[in-house]
Amino acid sequence: MTETVPQGLCRDFDRLPAVTLLRRLAEKPFDLTAPSALTVERLTTYRCHAAGFDLLYATQRIDERVLDALQALADEGRAIGQFLLMQQGAVLNRIEGFAGENRQVLHTACRDLFAEAPLAPETTAQAQAELVKLRAFLAELESGALTNAAGKPFADLVQIGIGGSDLGPRALSLALAAFAKPGRRVHCLSNVDPDDAAAVLKGLDLSRTLVNVVSKSGTTLETLTNEELARRAFAAAGLAPERHFLAVTGQGSPMDNSARYLRSFYMFDSIGGRYSATSMVGAVMLGFALGYEQVIELLRGAHAMDLAAAEPEIRRNPALLSALIGIWNRNFLGCESVAVLPYSQALVRFTAHLQQLDMESNGKSITRAGRDLAWQSGPVVWGEPGTNGQHAFFQFLHQGTAIVPVEFIGFRESQYGAELLLQGTTSQEKLVANLLAQMLALATGQPHANPNQRFAGNRPSSLLIADRLTPYAMGALLAFYEAKVVFQGFLWNINSFDQEGVQLGKKLANGFLAHFAAQRENFLYNGSEADPRGWALLEAAGLRAKRR
Amino acid sequence: MTETVPQGLCRDFDRLPAVTLLRRLAEKPFDLTAPSALTVERLTTYRCHAAGFDLLYATQRIDERVLDALQALADEGRAIGQFLLMQQGAVLNRIEGFAGENRQVLHTACRDLFAEAPLAPETTAQAQAELVKLRAFLAELESGALTNAAGKPFADLVQIGIGGSDLGPRALSLALAAFAKPGRRVHCLSNVDPDDAAAVLKGLDLSRTLVNVVSKSGTTLETLTNEELARRAFAAAGLAPERHFLAVTGQGSPMDNSARYLRSFYMFDSIGGRYSATSMVGAVMLGFALGYEQVIELLRGAHAMDLAAAEPEIRRNPALLSALIGIWNRNFLGCESVAVLPYSQALVRFTAHLQQLDMESNGKSITRAGRDLAWQSGPVVWGEPGTNGQHAFFQFLHQGTAIVPVEFIGFRESQYGAELLLQGTTSQEKLVANLLAQMLALATGQPHANPNQRFAGNRPSSLLIADRLTPYAMGALLAFYEAKVVFQGFLWNINSFDQEGVQLGKKLANGFLAHFAAQRENFLYNGSEADPRGWALLEAAGLRAKRR
Repeated sequence: MTETVPQGLCRDFDRLPAVTLLRRLAEKPFDLTAPSALTVERLTTYRCHAAGFDLLYATQRIDERVLDALQALADEGRAIGQFLLMQQGAVLNRIEGFAGENRQVLHTACRDLFAEAPLAPETTAQAQAELVKLRAFLAELESGALTNAAGKPFADLVQIGIGGSDLGPRALSLALAAFAKPGRRVHCLSNVDPDDAAAVLKGLDLSRTLVNVVSKSGTTLETLTNEELARRAFAAAGLAPERHFLAVTGQGSPMDNSARYLRSFYMFDSIGGRYSATSMVGAVMLGFALGYEQVIELLRGAHAMDLAAAEPEIRRNPALLSALIGIWNRNFLGCESVAVLPYSQALVRFTAHLQQLDMESNGKSITRAGRDLAWQSGPVVWGEPGTNGQHAFFQFLHQGTAIVPVEFIGFRESQYGAELLLQGTTSQEKLVANLLAQMLALATGQPHANPNQRFAGNRPSSLLIADRLTPYAMGALLAFYEAKVVFQGFLWNINSFDQEGVQLGKKLANGFLAHFAAQRENFLYNGSEADPRGWALLEAAGLRAKRR
Repeated sequence: MTETVPQGLCRDFDRLPAVTLLRRLAEKPFDLTAPSALTVERLTTYRCHAAGFDLLYATQRIDERVLDALQALADEGRAIGQFLLMQQGAVLNRIEGFAGENRQVLHTACRDLFAEAPLAPETTAQAQAELVKLRAFLAELESGALTNAAGKPFADLVQIGIGGSDLGPRALSLALAAFAKPGRRVHCLSNVDPDDAAAVLKGLDLSRTLVNVVSKSGTTLETLTNEELARRAFAAAGLAPERHFLAVTGQGSPMDNSARYLRSFYMFDSIGGRYSATSMVGAVMLGFALGYEQVIELLRGAHAMDLAAAEPEIRRNPALLSALIGIWNRNFLGCESVAVLPYSQALVRFTAHLQQLDMESNGKSITRAGRDLAWQSGPVVWGEPGTNGQHAFFQFLHQGTAIVPVEFIGFRESQYGAELLLQGTTSQEKLVANLLAQMLALATGQPHANPNQRFAGNRPSSLLIADRLTPYAMGALLAFYEAKVVFQGFLWNINSFDQEGVQLGKKLANGFLAHFAAQRENFLYNGSEADPRGWALLEAAGLRAKRR
């Protein structure tokens, strides 16, 4: 059953009364450098909790009036109403009056397994059916019922995918490597760069390797290219690819072919690539690496955050509050980028996933009615793990001429528990001491007689902190950012679920590919007739000459 | 011999006459979307060459008048004069009239080995002496004269360092992995995160592993913590650390101790961390991985770009021109960040190195005379390899509300040469076809009746392209960005060589560490007396309770 979206839900951002109020409040934002700004009361009150995470936001440039206005913004923009409609299957991936994808947005249904009455029962049942297939497959691997031709167990899995079929699963598998089953390793192959494929395949015993090819359409050029490279490597090693290759694809796609794949798992049109980490796109790889139970833990964490995100009171909803603070910093304080800085090396690729999730979703210039935006949409998202960043770009955060709000992520305990007491503290204590110190330093600044040792302060940040980076916490963190991004899109009145902006590059790339192919086939080919601009660019780049 | 800096060299940016002219020209920048904007002539003329790289800049919003004004800016700001003084040993790392590092800036001297008369002969001689030590050490490893206690050759090397002792060497060793000697692998350990150390050490045969500890002061907390973790792991495996551990450090530092290290290599005060990749900081690790000759190739490429960067005519100096175009985009067109997008998976960590190089150098708010800047300094630098980025944040680059200039990096040939012809083209052709297509798409845009398929265009980019990512090309690319960053710093009249902005965080971190240590020692400790704000933050973050 497909809900339609009530017209009143899609209101233009600059028509919301709270926007006028917020503009006025932004003329004099809260001063974090004032001597009594960071009181004990503020630090312990400006905090909310959900699904194992605490969000600390006392070091943002907000006060009660701003929070009240942000609550009004969320209410007027119907943030929660739209979120619930999304979860129930409303067709939110659309631009009113123009051709587009016209799809539901049901990534939350993948983990709505623990509720008595799922919000989108049909999609949740489909997700459940795929999980049953996955559990059976993993059990066969575990019991030895499924082995390679020589009767040996599979030790490695290479995921071939790009974009959402790569970034989320890659970030999650790195984040949870501490929980991997002994003897199991996973790898990712995404870039069409031939050096990437060569480097990934180089060190593997292919006879004990599974390859998981992920493409919803079954036609993604980069993915098919890498799959073909991998299939030839298997064939060259005397191995039958159909005994090693798995497919995660749309039902009925060219890749849905049991003659070519050992197993197929399905993905659905209602789940966009960048929101698909908790579907089979991530679950097959994570299940191989961590086992089925840990996949369920991940889904359980994501579901807990989904539930918390439906809370209308912003002071009790970390994802919604974080979305609103992001809007405050972007649209009212004028900050063009946001740095996400996890104090956890395991989250080394999580920011790369967030870049897609956030920037592909909210890097838009038209409303859901097809009109040009008169306000800013999503920011640049970037970051690296602390403490490394402290020895890299933190100089810029503290003393650069641009203000970049920071979202810190931290954990009270380490994953491995391999602690070393040195100079009276553990490594994990050093990590969190640095994290808290950076929050304070950015906020308060420091006056000094030497101008080079002066810190202006008033640089906003938040902290999201949990006990330990487990599969459950990873699921909650992932869902936190998914919810944050869609809340911002709802309020900016943009479609956070399509990506028409990638099409022009694809089209022009096909033109250059036609050039290269024609050059190879026909020595006399002169593409300058067809597209003088492209031809000149090839010439300028030294790429026009016939390649061997 | 130390040169002093003539006063006239440090001129304020907004006092340069060219700045006024550029402001006027920026009111109507070149329109890349005009039908005849990208002519064959423009595309093939707006190109310059140095050290194996072509810089293509026709897709920037500049014309002859802007180029002439940028030439005037470079001349008025004495960009080349300062660059030469730097290479000769002028004390450029200073703030006039205030306490500071007061050091020379001589990273180029590390590779000024191929000239008959080096510009800073003393430092070049020191660098040469370290290379002689390195060559001898590598030859001993090669010949089998130096082995582990069991007589077996070393197979792995773990570099322990952080910031400049990590990012540059890590980026370079990943970039050049295709050239690694068989059987040699290198790893990096930087983060104080205990999970990082556990993950790196997990898979190694320590008996055949060297550890290279890099810290100029010999007192970097993160590095010493990780070294101690590693030493305990060796001791626990019954191995004598002094037979496995190398040191790269300042002469006379606490780490300059032959009883604890198998070999020591020296680094010098005149070379800052983020500029140290071509010193022993990078050379020891790269020499182990690739062999001595490839290190010399890297230095040769860097030296060739250093020479090219001394050319005063901006249309013939890619590094200087790129610096000026960056200033055009930052200070005149108002772009707050720049994306560096290498179409090469091997350069996967090069942007992380650039983040430190650029943002730590030019994320500054005062002039070299200690006055507040009245103009913007360095931008946010971010990026990921293409084509992956196309499936992630390119939506934002094409259709977001913020304009982000792009610096593309590409290569005509792959490193491994493992090519697959699919649908008429090779993988490398697919890679460069996509790269060129993105440049065109960003520049020209596309009108369309469906607003969602409309591209505004006029989004500037450049391309730096070479034949193949070899050690020589890597050296040239590294030196290109080093020169670009210092040229921008010279023109903005900031000190690109210190990093006072990291000190406040360090100081506050020590406060939190004292809390943790005191909590462990004294059950009754109540730090709220000492620092109520820090204590409250610990409380709010759930970190106040005594940890096990």
